[in-house]
Amino acid sequence: MKNEFEWIRSIAQEEYSHSGVVTGIGDDAAVIREEEGFDTVLAVDTMVEGIHFTKETMPLEAVGHKALAVNVSDLAAMGAVPLYYMVSIAVPKTGWDQEETGRIYDGMKKLAARYPMDLIGGDTVSKKETLVLSVTVVGRVEKNRQLLRGRAEAGDVLFLTGPVGFSARGLDRLLREGRAAWDEKDAYIQAHQYPEPHVRYGRVFAESGARIAANDVSDGIGHEGREIAEASGTDVTIDWEALPFVERFKEFEEREEWLLHGGEDFCLIGAASPDVFAELQRVLKKENLPLYKIGTVDAGSGNVWLRRADGERKLLQSGGYTHF
Amino acid sequence: MKNEFEWIRSIAQEEYSHSGVVTGIGDDAAVIREEEGFDTVLAVDTMVEGIHFTKETMPLEAVGHKALAVNVSDLAAMGAVPLYYMVSIAVPKTGWDQEETGRIYDGMKKLAARYPMDLIGGDTVSKKETLVLSVTVVGRVEKNRQLLRGRAEAGDVLFLTGPVGFSARGLDRLLREGRAAWDEKDAYIQAHQYPEPHVRYGRVFAESGARIAANDVSDGIGHEGREIAEASGTDVTIDWEALPFVERFKEFEEREEWLLHGGEDFCLIGAASPDVFAELQRVLKKENLPLYKIGTVDAGSGNVWLRRADGERKLLQSGGYTHF
Repeated sequence: MKNEFEWIRSIAQEEYSHSGVVTGIGDDAAVIREEEGFDTVLAVDTMVEGIHFTKETMPLEAVGHKALAVNVSDLAAMGAVPLYYMVSIAVPKTGWDQEETGRIYDGMKKLAARYPMDLIGGDTVSKKETLVLSVTVVGRVEKNRQLLRGRAEAGDVLFLTGPVGFSARGLDRLLREGRAAWDEKDAYIQAHQYPEPHVRYGRVFAESGARIAANDVSDGIGHEGREIAEASGTDVTIDWEALPFVERFKEFEEREEWLLHGGEDFCLIGAASPDVFAELQRVLKKENLPLYKIGTVDAGSGNVWLRRADGERKLLQSGGYTHF
Repeated sequence: MKNEFEWIRSIAQEEYSHSGVVTGIGDDAAVIREEEGFDTVLAVDTMVEGIHFTKETMPLEAVGHKALAVNVSDLAAMGAVPLYYMVSIAVPKTGWDQEETGRIYDGMKKLAARYPMDLIGGDTVSKKETLVLSVTVVGRVEKNRQLLRGRAEAGDVLFLTGPVGFSARGLDRLLREGRAAWDEKDAYIQAHQYPEPHVRYGRVFAESGARIAANDVSDGIGHEGREIAEASGTDVTIDWEALPFVERFKEFEEREEWLLHGGEDFCLIGAASPDVFAELQRVLKKENLPLYKIGTVDAGSGNVWLRRADGERKLLQSGGYTHF
């Protein structure tokens, strides 16, 4: 059993990737230095055992991966470069051992190494029942280049940077089959367990300097579309048939639930003028990154519409997961 | 019952005190701008129901106050000015209502208003059993002026910015008497429920530009003294009789436990040369802020000694709360 000192040493990085780390892990707080011309971007998100995951739905490395990924996704939605993270973990006194907690950190470290991001702080506390993992991320974006959800305008293209519904479809199977469904080659299981934050998209959007609205798809495109519509003072219309890979969901009764309200897909939904959209599509194509037109931004007041191939529109009720 | 939008609106600030808030609550992430000449200081700390508090030991406003205070205390220990905070709260589905959660935010807001600090982000999730409150704070300190625990040298004065043991003594009574002990005039109860972060001390230390080591007393002066000693490659010696208000603890069997290992007092323990100490004491006295000499820093290798009035020293074993 490691004591607190040994534990901190075991999770602390020996070297930092970024010269902006003035004081890293191991003092009362972390000190970072921002480069000139940049703003600092901050987000925090919490994952709770029994609500966001169980030991049956997620390998422990995936718990770590996902806890960091959902936060990095928030940075991506602002167009930011991920730089640092801090981890606050509340570990149950029974049912969890240090080796397991270490695997959660392994999952975070592996994802962090890709950007790279440095672990600069956090704390560990004991608790009674379920594990709670709260991650704070820090990034940076060029001054006045952050992507805001309130920037859509009527006439814009509504776009998506990746498929939706995959995570919900994977979770559905995981809840039925448990560990038997842990399949590294299944795109739906992987989408749920190891979501990929769309950092590169966010950077291309921010670097373009164009007027672009964006949200990451944590709560389903119905919910995220409504956030863009409300913040922009417009309506948005989603073309059902334009959703990426919609044909793969045809046979499922839950297809609307999964595609519109499933959430946890962590691609970006956004809006830009048709010209900007075409230019973004062109730039992204060079990097083999698809950009899907999934609808339109229309004059209105915060509504989300679903349009069928025959042109019929229905008002999408507020759905998806609402806390409380 | 408020939905998520209404809830966020109810906790969001309408105006921000700091012009550095580029994007506050209500988008994917917060964006802040640092002033030239400053570094950004970050800390995160988590409070768990059943471990750090219960509804019997703490009024809900105090839960909020303390969750923010313990983080601000980390900023104080770095010499930083508190600026922003983000709150991640996991609320049990049963046993807690929105009015109660709102009171936790009220406690945070009241403390935040004093500095002032702006609430710039966070998230709310549901969970099964106990409430978990994770707060991230952001401050700033002049470049290269942060206070580090590894800066003590043999020959330094070991000092304390306030009394210790008060919080532990208050908790002892709270655990025995519950709500009957909630006494706004009792210094021990108040020390436990509404700890005061020593921000002003940290600022005086940082502004002095002198070599000063500092830690906030979250885990007791035995533990914090050891952190300074280990990080500095010295020993430290605590003079029992020099501890502030030590005479008030004479009658209690738990006096060593409370004064040395009690923790949660959130004053600062630190070290500086005798000359610097005298100068700090002089400057702080003008603001009616006492600074107590409680011992010495000696040549050594990470040990903490306790010295009695007759000069006898004993080695202090590693005590206080260790996670895992």
